Amino acid sequence: MPRMRVVQVATKGGPFELVERELPEPGPGEVRVRVQACGVCHSDSIGKEGLFPSVPYPIVPGHEIAGVIDAIGAGVIGWEVGTRVGVGWFGGHCGRCEPCRRGDLVDCRNLRIPGVTYDGGYAEAMIAPADALALIPDELSPVEAAPLLCAGVTTFHALRESGARPGDLVAILGIGGLGHLGVQFAAKMGFRTVAIARGQDKEPLARQLGAHVYLDSRSQDVAAELARLGGAKTILATVTSGKAMSAVIPGLAVRGRLIVVGVGMDPIEVPALDLIGGSRSVVGHASGSSIDSQDTLAFSAFSGVRPTIETMPLERAGEAYDRMMRNEARFRMVLTTGL
Amino acid sequence: MPRMRVVQVATKGGPFELVERELPEPGPGEVRVRVQACGVCHSDSIGKEGLFPSVPYPIVPGHEIAGVIDAIGAGVIGWEVGTRVGVGWFGGHCGRCEPCRRGDLVDCRNLRIPGVTYDGGYAEAMIAPADALALIPDELSPVEAAPLLCAGVTTFHALRESGARPGDLVAILGIGGLGHLGVQFAAKMGFRTVAIARGQDKEPLARQLGAHVYLDSRSQDVAAELARLGGAKTILATVTSGKAMSAVIPGLAVRGRLIVVGVGMDPIEVPALDLIGGSRSVVGHASGSSIDSQDTLAFSAFSGVRPTIETMPLERAGEAYDRMMRNEARFRMVLTTGL
Amino acid sequence: MPRMRVVQVATKGGPFELVERELPEPGPGEVRVRVQACGVCHSDSIGKEGLFPSVPYPIVPGHEIAGVIDAIGAGVIGWEVGTRVGVGWFGGHCGRCEPCRRGDLVDCRNLRIPGVTYDGGYAEAMIAPADALALIPDELSPVEAAPLLCAGVTTFHALRESGARPGDLVAILGIGGLGHLGVQFAAKMGFRTVAIARGQDKEPLARQLGAHVYLDSRSQDVAAELARLGGAKTILATVTSGKAMSAVIPGLAVRGRLIVVGVGMDPIEVPALDLIGGSRSVVGHASGSSIDSQDTLAFSAFSGVRPTIETMPLERAGEAYDRMMRNEARFRMVLTTGL
Amino acid sequence: MPRMRVVQVATKGGPFELVERELPEPGPGEVRVRVQACGVCHSDSIGKEGLFPSVPYPIVPGHEIAGVIDAIGAGVIGWEVGTRVGVGWFGGHCGRCEPCRRGDLVDCRNLRIPGVTYDGGYAEAMIAPADALALIPDELSPVEAAPLLCAGVTTFHALRESGARPGDLVAILGIGGLGHLGVQFAAKMGFRTVAIARGQDKEPLARQLGAHVYLDSRSQDVAAELARLGGAKTILATVTSGKAMSAVIPGLAVRGRLIVVGVGMDPIEVPALDLIGGSRSVVGHASGSSIDSQDTLAFSAFSGVRPTIETMPLERAGEAYDRMMRNEARFRMVLTTGL
Repeated sequence: MPRMRVVQVATKGGPFELVERELPEPGPGEVRVRVQACGVCHSDSIGKEGLFPSVPYPIVPGHEIAGVIDAIGAGVIGWEVGTRVGVGWFGGHCGRCEPCRRGDLVDCRNLRIPGVTYDGGYAEAMIAPADALALIPDELSPVEAAPLLCAGVTTFHALRESGARPGDLVAILGIGGLGHLGVQFAAKMGFRTVAIARGQDKEPLARQLGAHVYLDSRSQDVAAELARLGGAKTILATVTSGKAMSAVIPGLAVRGRLIVVGVGMDPIEVPALDLIGGSRSVVGHASGSSIDSQDTLAFSAFSGVRPTIETMPLERAGEAYDRMMRNEARFRMVLTTGL
Repeated sequence: MPRMRVVQVATKGGPFELVERELPEPGPGEVRVRVQACGVCHSDSIGKEGLFPSVPYPIVPGHEIAGVIDAIGAGVIGWEVGTRVGVGWFGGHCGRCEPCRRGDLVDCRNLRIPGVTYDGGYAEAMIAPADALALIPDELSPVEAAPLLCAGVTTFHALRESGARPGDLVAILGIGGLGHLGVQFAAKMGFRTVAIARGQDKEPLARQLGAHVYLDSRSQDVAAELARLGGAKTILATVTSGKAMSAVIPGLAVRGRLIVVGVGMDPIEVPALDLIGGSRSVVGHASGSSIDSQDTLAFSAFSGVRPTIETMPLERAGEAYDRMMRNEARFRMVLTTGL
Repeated sequence: MPRMRVVQVATKGGPFELVERELPEPGPGEVRVRVQACGVCHSDSIGKEGLFPSVPYPIVPGHEIAGVIDAIGAGVIGWEVGTRVGVGWFGGHCGRCEPCRRGDLVDCRNLRIPGVTYDGGYAEAMIAPADALALIPDELSPVEAAPLLCAGVTTFHALRESGARPGDLVAILGIGGLGHLGVQFAAKMGFRTVAIARGQDKEPLARQLGAHVYLDSRSQDVAAELARLGGAKTILATVTSGKAMSAVIPGLAVRGRLIVVGVGMDPIEVPALDLIGGSRSVVGHASGSSIDSQDTLAFSAFSGVRPTIETMPLERAGEAYDRMMRNEARFRMVLTTGL
Repeated sequence: MPRMRVVQVATKGGPFELVERELPEPGPGEVRVRVQACGVCHSDSIGKEGLFPSVPYPIVPGHEIAGVIDAIGAGVIGWEVGTRVGVGWFGGHCGRCEPCRRGDLVDCRNLRIPGVTYDGGYAEAMIAPADALALIPDELSPVEAAPLLCAGVTTFHALRESGARPGDLVAILGIGGLGHLGVQFAAKMGFRTVAIARGQDKEPLARQLGAHVYLDSRSQDVAAELARLGGAKTILATVTSGKAMSAVIPGLAVRGRLIVVGVGMDPIEVPALDLIGGSRSVVGHASGSSIDSQDTLAFSAFSGVRPTIETMPLERAGEAYDRMMRNEARFRMVLTTGL
């Protein structure tokens, strides 16, 4: 019986454990993905710590999965063994809830999520429903593809849906796992791109990623600086502080939008006048579906956007996770299986 | 020399004074409006109390002005003496700031406002720039038209721009000067219309205005009730409490929008997850331009929307203002000149 | 073995035949609908005459199906025996083509269509995939619901997606099976509604349906009249003559759209200057998905829109079809099963 | 009395004449522009041949004007002597027609056009209303800026308003004065860019301009090739043949749009089914306003887009015009004044 290694969490809040399991078989509508690389994301804490109700422990975390299809279940059409695919946060939709029926797949009320509602990618193989698959283009290696399947699609899709037009001033708030991709995407989409981070040390990197302007939120009044530049049509908020998001709202242009992709403990505080005077908005943006991931990968391949990563082998998952949680990763941790 | 009566405020925070002035002549690009009726709006406090910088005292308040053109300045094309017109909050745009150049006239950075930046409609006549004029259709009397020029256009335009589609669930938060018009507009636009107010006593009126559902925010969990109905695509927030706005956000449908037209002292608090999970937005909406007012008047005329008003003669302006500020008006005070 | 009566076409272009068949059982993901009423649509000729490739003869026509679920296949969640449902042109989507993955279900490249790709509603029962079902509200009888599932959703959904706003001038070109519903929907959505047909005899009906203006394309220059009214933001073209569509384009307002739902033999001819001067568009609109049908039914129920119909029993399907094809129906033929 | 040289056309269809005139003074709301360069556009034939009614002969053609403000009329705010500015097709709006009141300045019903309704840029100086001015950034020389003020803004603005998103397949039909800019803009906006022209000889240039794919409409079935690539979300039609535009419509993706900026003698023929099956549109696009020109110049400056030009001195205007009309220019003729 073929077996595989996985990293699992046995109970809510439990430690990562490297164990062996039987290689699972895909059911109807499913494929098995031989995992080559899996990104480590802050949201992995949801599975690990049981932040969503009814996580089915033991759970294998991981929702930035890049690999190769190596078995196909009954009724799957259009995917073949040997095809390189990725699976992200969007791990399958129900097709029958109201958002699904309206075609808003990412807002599925019964969204399946690898690493949270079923076993994810901290493993040598995993089972995914076919609708969760995104094609990986030849130009991208597995470790490059992995972080694009969550950090990448979230920022890419948020930016292309933001309403900002080429040439508009677009600011990325926070230059970390998400933000360092957001800056690259914004620049490649033809936006005048502003990178905002704490301290001067990230400026050289931000400029190298394509930022036309760098603002240091520690020493500068970011909202005032943005206003001086004409106001930002979009501010993509990748930080986790509601307070930091509130502070930049006055830097939005008329009709500008603060697009929220980062989740903080504290709420965003919005004075009504800041919104009404200038017809501004605060907009929540939720990741993307599998074809949005596929678009993200294709765009990255042809435009040259690449994540900055540190890799570790699967068995060092705990170390990778801790490093990410301490915000020490530059900028994204990726586990490799050697496959 | 012909003269006119006006109600003015001589100094910041001063009382209303009924005085006589010389009848002014329109300059180039301006017309003189013989005022028949002028609505009393909460925003009249801006002129009265000097809440904007550089109000030119003495100031004549009033930005819900309905009357007849009785003199025309040089270079005005397309308007004639005898035409019935209204002037609202939008009292003229500069044409040269960035929003103006982009055609976003209501967001003009140098917006002129009658009763705030120049003399308004608490008077027998006033001077308005031609671009501030809205045509009043025959079906509407001056007292009916007046409140539509601020309370009306704000709610009508917000609803038609909200992204909600006919048949969608649309809620109006607050049934007062703005809200009682919002409910009527929503119903006539084909929305499933929910009226939300404090207490049971407003239910009969809300239903008479066209509401299909009434929610009492005192005794019901409004957000939960909205969610039970499928979630609101739009909640039009006409109240002045940020806290009350925050409370209804979980009642938004997927892709739903809280449209903010009321201004409160306290900020709106928005947990990021409430926005991200469901791709929701909080959107500021700022009144409308003169053609938006004209559209509001035309729509009201042909669909049967009418404000509920109490009238007082011009000389009782102070009494009308106090009544409105104490939220005792049902629902809109209108001053009449007898002209 | 329970049996049912159906009206089938045995070969391409063959006659309608009333035959008995065994009552079919729903497969996985399917339900069986006990048919109460089925509308007769011009597009039924596609199945009857084999206008699409690979119609599986014998075929049972009919894609305006109203009835009750009476059996449920494996894996169907959310639908119950006894629920009143309808099935329209949208008879199931594949879920894996690019439009499906993007949530654009109605543009599915492998769209299933009852009466064209599988047996439809000219029958006492039919099998439908669960994703094709639309809930019928209590307020609507089966014969009322049937035409709303194709003629209804096509016009309702086209109008709500047209970009026209309440109060805007919206014209319906052609007052027949689709147009008589279009006029009602437009009026209930708050549009200033223009009905356009050939001859004076349809004017009283058009006004009764809610039209504010009637134009007779036989005696009036329709484009000039529309322009005189300010230009139409939307013209919904339900006719089958490309020439008639071309003729009204100059009647579009600036930024106006001709929405094409009728299919003609001759192409629409568009001078480039008619589009560029005025930033106008010609837009194709394709029916709607099952939830769009459900929205149409719900809107009709609550707003009072109803189709004008003539009914015939199932066994007179041929007669009903001929009457419809000769444009003699006022305005929609519906077959009834007596169930 | 200071004088200037201009190239005028004295009567409808008359020849170009180099004459001397008195240097004009700007009236209220106007500035005088010292012309450094003026592009030669196919639309110059409108003034030369009197294709619009009531061209005020003698007329000075030219609506791609780059220069420096050297005198300012009464009431002009925000512009200074010495500022580098351009004037394009949008030569001033009336501010009072319905499109203007709605903020749709480019669709002004009384649009002023230099070289058509008043004297344009084939001259050492010209008078322009202040609202027609676009700021020229330092990075662009006058000869580079000139063609961007009509050919540039038309393609840039059409593309940014087209609804295509970064990564989408966007095709430019026709690689000439407009198309060679369209290809560059599309590539810099992050579109997968297809250039379509007649013959193989333009392929190297198209690729150099940034095209990812080249299609030769002489030897390839362009619509089929586009469909094979997934379908184009946008096809920007810069050609002047309605027949050529019709031919590519089946190459549009689902929800794809043919954006028409070129004007042909023959109409575009559109089969209704080509639009309905796939929810496609044909959309007219009309240039842009002065701030759209300013955006075009700013985007070109920062992204590196530049027109390919041939220059001739003002006195050879006739020769430049003939060369352009014979389609021999590679790709845009620009007249220079030596100022």
